[in-house]
Amino acid sequence: MNDDEARAWAYLSRVAEPPCPHLAALVGCVGPVEAAARVRGGAVPQSLRSHVEARRHIDCAEQDLAILKRLGGRLVTAGDEEWPALAFAAFAGVTGRPQSHEPLVLWAVGPARLDDVAARAAAVVGTRAATAYGEHVAADFAAGLVGRDAAVVSGGAFGIDGAAHRSALATEGLTVAALAGGVDVPYPSGHATLLRRIADEGLVVSEYPPGVRPARYRFLTRNRLVAALSGATVVVEAGARSGAANTAAWARALGRAVCAVPGPITSSASVGCHALLKDHAHVVTRASEVIELIGRVGELAPEESRPVSPLDGLEDSEKRVYEALPARGGRTADQLAVASGLPPTQVLGPLAVLEVLGLVVCRDGRWKLALR
Amino acid sequence: MNDDEARAWAYLSRVAEPPCPHLAALVGCVGPVEAAARVRGGAVPQSLRSHVEARRHIDCAEQDLAILKRLGGRLVTAGDEEWPALAFAAFAGVTGRPQSHEPLVLWAVGPARLDDVAARAAAVVGTRAATAYGEHVAADFAAGLVGRDAAVVSGGAFGIDGAAHRSALATEGLTVAALAGGVDVPYPSGHATLLRRIADEGLVVSEYPPGVRPARYRFLTRNRLVAALSGATVVVEAGARSGAANTAAWARALGRAVCAVPGPITSSASVGCHALLKDHAHVVTRASEVIELIGRVGELAPEESRPVSPLDGLEDSEKRVYEALPARGGRTADQLAVASGLPPTQVLGPLAVLEVLGLVVCRDGRWKLALR
Repeated sequence: MNDDEARAWAYLSRVAEPPCPHLAALVGCVGPVEAAARVRGGAVPQSLRSHVEARRHIDCAEQDLAILKRLGGRLVTAGDEEWPALAFAAFAGVTGRPQSHEPLVLWAVGPARLDDVAARAAAVVGTRAATAYGEHVAADFAAGLVGRDAAVVSGGAFGIDGAAHRSALATEGLTVAALAGGVDVPYPSGHATLLRRIADEGLVVSEYPPGVRPARYRFLTRNRLVAALSGATVVVEAGARSGAANTAAWARALGRAVCAVPGPITSSASVGCHALLKDHAHVVTRASEVIELIGRVGELAPEESRPVSPLDGLEDSEKRVYEALPARGGRTADQLAVASGLPPTQVLGPLAVLEVLGLVVCRDGRWKLALR
Repeated sequence: MNDDEARAWAYLSRVAEPPCPHLAALVGCVGPVEAAARVRGGAVPQSLRSHVEARRHIDCAEQDLAILKRLGGRLVTAGDEEWPALAFAAFAGVTGRPQSHEPLVLWAVGPARLDDVAARAAAVVGTRAATAYGEHVAADFAAGLVGRDAAVVSGGAFGIDGAAHRSALATEGLTVAALAGGVDVPYPSGHATLLRRIADEGLVVSEYPPGVRPARYRFLTRNRLVAALSGATVVVEAGARSGAANTAAWARALGRAVCAVPGPITSSASVGCHALLKDHAHVVTRASEVIELIGRVGELAPEESRPVSPLDGLEDSEKRVYEALPARGGRTADQLAVASGLPPTQVLGPLAVLEVLGLVVCRDGRWKLALR
């Protein structure tokens, strides 16, 4: 990308509220430099005019690029090697969602490559009004994911997002914050330090040029980016109306796995998760399950261990005889036949097995439970 | 049922460990009185012999019936009007589960009719090692179920079962305890008073004759009865290896709805519930959802209310203009066009709508958020 192209992309990134398929179509036809010139001059198709009319006279591309340079960032577009083309290809298959278009330009700050992120990322998202349980679970999942070499994408918000980012950083893993405003606008401001760490060690990314402040509809647009960069979206806690449900809806539309973590049904912070589960989201209780869903099955977690009972693996008749023994004192084989309902001839075999296993002992013709 | 028949049924109930399809087949052929005589005399088919050999000499039918009479109970068999034939018919369709046979005899104590129970029951079951959360949820579901005229079936155990029974009684609803031992053997003994109340107001029922003590395999047999009497089985809390999972497996085999209540993934008492959810059990968070599953949809619960936002129902352009307004101070329509990215001609319409809704005010050509 030469300087003219960079200035053109920066101008185009601001002139229309993203995503703007009409603008993308023009750029696709004539390239960014010519597209920028036409937009600036007002020589654009009618369908595009209304989208760029309000801002086409604004050109602060030089300043925007200077800010980006100061942050150590870069513009990434479809022509770049790190453009996550495979991940974004899914937008083409989405119907009925008006914003289903890949970004035109991404403003990125951080050492991670976008294509590498998209090849191994899970989103861990949820409510800002998280409970201690939710933050604990978000941290646990994030640590488990990066421990299995996955990247953790989230929205940089308070609550679940922040817990996921922090835990990924603490585990020295890769984490990515997708913002609803410019990469130079730390939002929420209380996360300025956290976002700086993410930019230093992972990636902060946005469709919006520097200086743009988050707005409600920009959070929704951003959620689509979180879902698109991730093989699975895990909703850890979400209220009845949470942005996380919107991210989950994008994940589903894009053909990605939608996962929800169960929580107490008495907790309003889990209502959105349970609604997703009722709508056939995957129940996840461990990071390894998310890893399986995003297809990195090379490192499957071991099976959950189950408590072991001395009766495991016994035949039914052996269990029946064992159960027929009293807690104290002994019984003859005939008495055990009556108690268990088995014929006397079928009691001795099981008793022999139980004796070998050390579960019962025989003294003077009377059988009793072994002391343990 | 005359006295001879009653004595025959009582004898047959004890002579083979239930369920015993070979014994049921003989009774079906020759009736209970003749079947009892043949079993007593040892004149039975080879296939049945091993099942009755150990106990055929035991005849305490008179005493058993006397105990039942003292408790105010009754024998119920397929010939009785209250036999839940429709519910038990599902056993015929189950394959691959060896105990899939309807009971031969039920020992019942209490004013409720079995067929009435089976027509409107849900099972509420779970671990004995319940948490405060689990007991709260069990009580809440039981109260919600009986409040909608459903019956609550459970196993009379400590923990979830007890919480469900107690709550149903407290709400003056119908509750049924299915026992893994005789109806005169309160188990656990700490629930003697609770079981007496259930027998006084609802129903205590068992396949086992008086005096029989519960054993591990009898709990499994009992679980099949809990599932068969219920249109849905709700597992409230269950550990990694819980009898509740067995009840749920019976419910699924019998074509009944299997429901699990989510809980914290950090709680070992919810591990079994989450395993069921991963295995496609219904996620339930309210009793009304269980009611829908057992088909009593006449009394649907109202939709869960969602918090209301002033932006509900606004068009996208109206939301964008609204979001473009600063928290303090005002903006001109042209400034709002730039901020929102909408053409100036498309800002005034949304502003008018927002003004009518009382969300914005206009002073001297500058628009600002209305104070609320």
